Amino acid sequence: MASRIDAAQRTAIDMINARAKSSIDVALTRSFLHNTHEEWERRERIIQVLKDDPAFDKSRREFMTRTERYTRGLAMTNRIYELQEIHKWSNEETAVAFASLDEQLPNFLHNVAFQPVFSLQGSPSLVAKYGPQIATRGIIGCYLQTELGHGTNVSQLETTATFIPGTQEFEIHSPNLTSTKWWIGALGKTATYGVVQAKLILPGGKDVGPHLFLVQLRNTDNHNVLPGIVIGDIGPKALGGFSPVDNGFARFSHVRIPKENMLSKFAQVTEEGKYVQPPHAKLSYGGMLYIRANMVTGAGWLMAKAATVSIRYATVRRQGGKDSDGLEKQTITYPSLYIRLLPILSHAYVFIQLGKTLINSFNTMASRLATGDTSLLAEMHATTSGLKVLCSTMGVQDLEVARRSMGGHGYSAFAGLGRLYADYLPSVTYEGDNFVLDQQVVRAALKSFGTLFSSNSPSTSVSSLSPSSQYLRLLLQPAAPLPSPTGDGWGDPAAAILLLEWRAALLVREHAQTADEPDASVYQRVSKAVTEAFVAVQVGEIIKTLTSLPAHDAHVIRSLYTLYLLTTVEAGLVDFLSFGVLVPSNNTGSHDRSVDPARSLRLAINQLCQELLPNAIGLTDAFGFTDWELDSALGVFDGRVYDALWERVQTEPLNQTEVTSAYEESIKPMLLRGQRQAAQSHSKL
Amino acid sequence: MASRIDAAQRTAIDMINARAKSSIDVALTRSFLHNTHEEWERRERIIQVLKDDPAFDKSRREFMTRTERYTRGLAMTNRIYELQEIHKWSNEETAVAFASLDEQLPNFLHNVAFQPVFSLQGSPSLVAKYGPQIATRGIIGCYLQTELGHGTNVSQLETTATFIPGTQEFEIHSPNLTSTKWWIGALGKTATYGVVQAKLILPGGKDVGPHLFLVQLRNTDNHNVLPGIVIGDIGPKALGGFSPVDNGFARFSHVRIPKENMLSKFAQVTEEGKYVQPPHAKLSYGGMLYIRANMVTGAGWLMAKAATVSIRYATVRRQGGKDSDGLEKQTITYPSLYIRLLPILSHAYVFIQLGKTLINSFNTMASRLATGDTSLLAEMHATTSGLKVLCSTMGVQDLEVARRSMGGHGYSAFAGLGRLYADYLPSVTYEGDNFVLDQQVVRAALKSFGTLFSSNSPSTSVSSLSPSSQYLRLLLQPAAPLPSPTGDGWGDPAAAILLLEWRAALLVREHAQTADEPDASVYQRVSKAVTEAFVAVQVGEIIKTLTSLPAHDAHVIRSLYTLYLLTTVEAGLVDFLSFGVLVPSNNTGSHDRSVDPARSLRLAINQLCQELLPNAIGLTDAFGFTDWELDSALGVFDGRVYDALWERVQTEPLNQTEVTSAYEESIKPMLLRGQRQAAQSHSKL
Repeated sequence: MASRIDAAQRTAIDMINARAKSSIDVALTRSFLHNTHEEWERRERIIQVLKDDPAFDKSRREFMTRTERYTRGLAMTNRIYELQEIHKWSNEETAVAFASLDEQLPNFLHNVAFQPVFSLQGSPSLVAKYGPQIATRGIIGCYLQTELGHGTNVSQLETTATFIPGTQEFEIHSPNLTSTKWWIGALGKTATYGVVQAKLILPGGKDVGPHLFLVQLRNTDNHNVLPGIVIGDIGPKALGGFSPVDNGFARFSHVRIPKENMLSKFAQVTEEGKYVQPPHAKLSYGGMLYIRANMVTGAGWLMAKAATVSIRYATVRRQGGKDSDGLEKQTITYPSLYIRLLPILSHAYVFIQLGKTLINSFNTMASRLATGDTSLLAEMHATTSGLKVLCSTMGVQDLEVARRSMGGHGYSAFAGLGRLYADYLPSVTYEGDNFVLDQQVVRAALKSFGTLFSSNSPSTSVSSLSPSSQYLRLLLQPAAPLPSPTGDGWGDPAAAILLLEWRAALLVREHAQTADEPDASVYQRVSKAVTEAFVAVQVGEIIKTLTSLPAHDAHVIRSLYTLYLLTTVEAGLVDFLSFGVLVPSNNTGSHDRSVDPARSLRLAINQLCQELLPNAIGLTDAFGFTDWELDSALGVFDGRVYDALWERVQTEPLNQTEVTSAYEESIKPMLLRGQRQAAQSHSKL
Repeated sequence: MASRIDAAQRTAIDMINARAKSSIDVALTRSFLHNTHEEWERRERIIQVLKDDPAFDKSRREFMTRTERYTRGLAMTNRIYELQEIHKWSNEETAVAFASLDEQLPNFLHNVAFQPVFSLQGSPSLVAKYGPQIATRGIIGCYLQTELGHGTNVSQLETTATFIPGTQEFEIHSPNLTSTKWWIGALGKTATYGVVQAKLILPGGKDVGPHLFLVQLRNTDNHNVLPGIVIGDIGPKALGGFSPVDNGFARFSHVRIPKENMLSKFAQVTEEGKYVQPPHAKLSYGGMLYIRANMVTGAGWLMAKAATVSIRYATVRRQGGKDSDGLEKQTITYPSLYIRLLPILSHAYVFIQLGKTLINSFNTMASRLATGDTSLLAEMHATTSGLKVLCSTMGVQDLEVARRSMGGHGYSAFAGLGRLYADYLPSVTYEGDNFVLDQQVVRAALKSFGTLFSSNSPSTSVSSLSPSSQYLRLLLQPAAPLPSPTGDGWGDPAAAILLLEWRAALLVREHAQTADEPDASVYQRVSKAVTEAFVAVQVGEIIKTLTSLPAHDAHVIRSLYTLYLLTTVEAGLVDFLSFGVLVPSNNTGSHDRSVDPARSLRLAINQLCQELLPNAIGLTDAFGFTDWELDSALGVFDGRVYDALWERVQTEPLNQTEVTSAYEESIKPMLLRGQRQAAQSHSKL
């Protein structure tokens, strides 16, 4: 008994054994995910600087108030810019530093919204005047769009910007409570300037809709709020999310700004107050698409964290029946557990790689847009809308599935995934509410469908289908055989990809034919089918690139991508079955003899999972996260989860005294009352 | 323009109009949900006392640290017991007071775990000695089961209780790190005694498995921890959940307790150290089943809160296209929104009523158990396991669906649903991890299936099927026609109930036939199907009781229950289709001519939703929540959500100064650095 290794020590051995079992080359896979070995090394170097710097210490974070979290967030931000000077980091390297923090920070909005919108839409003279300070954060900005009363429906924003020809100024004004700008990141306590969305009112009262205006918010000398403006923080967010960000509100009372402060690269107002139309109404969409394109990569790396933490914990946690080694089973060996975790791993690999493709496409589009060429805009809009919905919905779900897979300890703040969930949760509503975006995806699909079939010879117009509408080609070949894989057939990614394209085609066609009587959830279903078909085709392309890896590694990673495809097919089974794409194998209409056609798919998925299991740790190690990045007691690299939990718990403020102050205040009176009542009831007997 | 009603004022009018449109008798429906008008009035009276008492003020809650939340929680607890004395509340009335708080409090564990386990399993002499003080909380207790290394698998707990014949004592000991008791509610700072699960070791070293022991933890005079025991709080929980609860850890170093402190109503140790077997190993399960049975009611009322807040907000929030009244549409009118919210309303009505049935069944079982009759135990165990999984999974999901339906503002802490989500989230893992319980449900189902078909004449043994296995009768009638509703046929609840029973029967049979080669998610699917069939039958019974209501009210509520049934069928479509229970209507195997059989179901659901919409506010008002109970700026009774948000936001601590302290520390250095860098780059030009 004495020589027996106890459960806490066992964890480290389990992790070492799991690493020994991995058959892939972790370093090569890491380079695949991080583009090149050099990019990985650069990242390592930057993270080394941060994790040894006290500004980025995470040990007290869970005990802080929101004000403390905000203050710490600003200190980290300032420190990173200081380090940028010290280490002569490029802007890209600085971005890597910020991205390696697991914190939402106010300056994020400066970088992804304020600065791009200002640069893309400001007039050359305005950009010349303010651009340099904005680039170096001599000005800290925010982007004031959403109002208390309006988010999604930008056209109904109520803030006004009235042109005053006499002084060549605009008057920014909040006419009522609901026009208060609301939710604006970095507005509450940080930003000195903002770009304000406001209805442009011409002399005579004509409203030409929302336009953008650069407005100074705070005094550059002492940070006081400028006259006529009321600014504040909108308070804590649900689940403690976005704690360090001062999402704020602002009301404007007849605030005057110079005419030149209108962002007038596209639309303008003349000195006389005449409106000059923008050449293309959509030229201003670039910024939003940039954020959405980046969300795909972001989701991939978040899924990677969820997979790393949960798979590591499931590797060292033993519970339940005895295994062949006489110990309780590692929880990762339970089918009900690995069937939840390995798909998350596959999602991470899909979205990390897909994000790279998407950023490339965005850059191509942006360079064309700069020359006034909007030809790629509609496609980019449809693609990023659908992917934004898919990756944010899936990311939120994966974080929670991973957290829940860790049972009781997953609910500890020290497990680390709850914090990521809380911060990621709003991604399903910001940058376009997912349910609104679904409708835009469907609208684009119906348009492609309509174009294809309104043509007299549809088959000739297949070549005009955009990349994201390629699946519609299938409808032109009614005789084309549908894949109906069984057994080993499911191992071929091509079959699953084609099935997912068929699903999209059939759903779009049915919706086009019944659009006058839609059911209540049709947009979600069609949007999902269309986007999943697009992703499936992209995954097929990614699989082709695996040839750059050694054959065995390529085989394992291909299996992981196949798992993504098959679980996507499984999640879409209702569509496949209700359209008769898959049918019960003995379908006589007599329920008692039919055989479940989903079963061969599910068995193939199980088979794939079992093949992948020995490499689960290797495939997560390949993400390359440090313990500092994960900040999870359950996801520590060495597997010593119980030691890690124990250490973290000792830092809890409640543990700094043996007897709580609530004892004298509340516990003692309660005990004394109870003792008195018990004595009274006893004396009555 | 001046006379136009602005959006903030409009909210109140929208709410008044929505109430005017409700055709049901809200007061009668309220009595239906609260059992009787008298029970409702009692509840009202108690809540009136609490909401006017400063101890229960919620206005600063969102800004508190965990230590402050804990301290406040104890103060509320003490105050309720004080009010109990003042107002001479019965224990039941006191329970109503606690249940009306939207707080998890340490004493909950005393009430639902420590006290019942002690009473049910303590020897008569031990109960006589400690019972009165436990009942009045002269002793505050906790229940120490889970350890750092073991939760689900109780049989592997490592804490030991070694019998010492010489002194007639037990020695409680934690032999290693992983045997540390962990997660124990009220242990960290509050409880004075605990019931400890520990392996009973007899003289000679024989281990007879986990048993229960009453152990004093803290000194009664000064609350100091007793010698040999190390106690602490395990730190913050994910998402800020369970903040006021001191979930704790404890390690015991050879702590001696008298022999009489073993809870020995069933199993005993003689003075010589001989073990006396319990008459029935499962006699001790009662307590756990009680908690699970209560979880159904709890889930129902939580879904009721989610429905009330989200439906109220969706009634006054206007966004997007213009309606016939020239205003933007109320968001509740969007199909993609009401299809998410009305099912939550239906879930609430189902689980509130089902919870009452279940408590009655539990009481019947408990009174039989007290006489040693265990005949109802297995059935109660199977039923409560399945329902616990279903109601907790659905409750967590509904809270998030409701929160997400409120778009951006739903992510504000002041929206109120995030807090409920954080507190409810662990329900999917505590009291039996849902994924483990699924297996128990399936095991029970397979056992019933096996019994039925191992008999020589199965048709005669139908009468022996337990209530939760009745669906298996269908397998004995292979010729019985399956319902295949279309169009209006979906309006009949009986058809949906029968379908859900068929699904359970077919899934259990398939699983029984393929149990040697299961796929990885089969337990979840079978467990869900079995439990949903049970609930469907119960819903059929509830519908029968509606005759006590006026005909119109009964009709509306019946539609709501039908919505529950149809959306459950829709969520199970994969099973219905893959078993050929529903088939594409023109199923020639040629995908291009088949017709989606799910469509008539989805249209029927949409139709039902539209019928229910005018009563959505009335049906939520009938829950009877006060604004104090909901504590949601978006769920206020009068609909003035924007005024409510504005008021709450002004209390944010960050708003108490115009310039944050982070300005001098971090923002100013950042601005100055940026200005310097901009100037430098300018001078280089």
